[in-house]
Amino acid sequence: MITEELFASTAVSSWKQVVGRLNDAVASLTDEQLQRQVAPDKNRVIYIVGHLVAVNDRLFPMLGLGERLHPELDDVYLTNPDRKLPDPLSTEDLKKAWSDVHGKLTAGIEAMAPLQWLERHSAVSEEEFAKEPLRNRLAVLASRTNHVSFHAGQLVLTR
Amino acid sequence: MITEELFASTAVSSWKQVVGRLNDAVASLTDEQLQRQVAPDKNRVIYIVGHLVAVNDRLFPMLGLGERLHPELDDVYLTNPDRKLPDPLSTEDLKKAWSDVHGKLTAGIEAMAPLQWLERHSAVSEEEFAKEPLRNRLAVLASRTNHVSFHAGQLVLTR
Repeated sequence: MITEELFASTAVSSWKQVVGRLNDAVASLTDEQLQRQVAPDKNRVIYIVGHLVAVNDRLFPMLGLGERLHPELDDVYLTNPDRKLPDPLSTEDLKKAWSDVHGKLTAGIEAMAPLQWLERHSAVSEEEFAKEPLRNRLAVLASRTNHVSFHAGQLVLTR
Repeated sequence: MITEELFASTAVSSWKQVVGRLNDAVASLTDEQLQRQVAPDKNRVIYIVGHLVAVNDRLFPMLGLGERLHPELDDVYLTNPDRKLPDPLSTEDLKKAWSDVHGKLTAGIEAMAPLQWLERHSAVSEEEFAKEPLRNRLAVLASRTNHVSFHAGQLVLTR
């Protein structure tokens, strides 16, 4: 492997490891487990799962990987706090949304050419990017990987 | 910046962002806050802080950045679960351990040359590394960054 492949593969591998650990955990959640709060008066598991689907779904346009699959989840799981709005999806459909978003996203991430990771992401302007070249796609991937880890640490408390 | 500098800087910047958010939070913890559990019957804040100091302290030899500063914390915060052994440090000394380890570590991480990140870390043998070149220092940094994020998600529940 050449240098840029090694750098890019390490970042992609970190994403796959963090998301991979949650794929099985999410798929096996029961209705009762989804309604548990990670701590008293804190977010329910279902909110965190929906939140991660919504936030990671936004990576499609940010990384140039196509259209979002579930923009309708933003209102419930991103813009508003837990329990403000009713959960819009059945357990089965929420798990399918998780699987669809992370499956398609990971395939797109794996297919990206190494140097594409250093390109601008769509939420930064060309002018800003010229001044701050670290606001690249790789930085977004690292940030979202950390974001998944952050909430994974909360989900594990309900086991 | 050249390609390998951009790749390495993005990973280093992710580490600094995640650890930087916790530096202030840890410094301002009161004795009472340190004794709180992140959820009923789960780890106390002080255990998680000590655990992160112990785990990240191990990065010094792993990344070739010198000797560990606090190997004496492993027994309490790594090998054993919370509340098995008495906390060995005063609040002041634990905060100093956090600050010393993460300050020195981050300085070493920032000073590393980009291509050094693709080198073998000390916990993998030369034979293994020849077969699996992704078991490099960068993978360790990404893994430890995610580990800090994982516990940061728990610490935030006590606020």
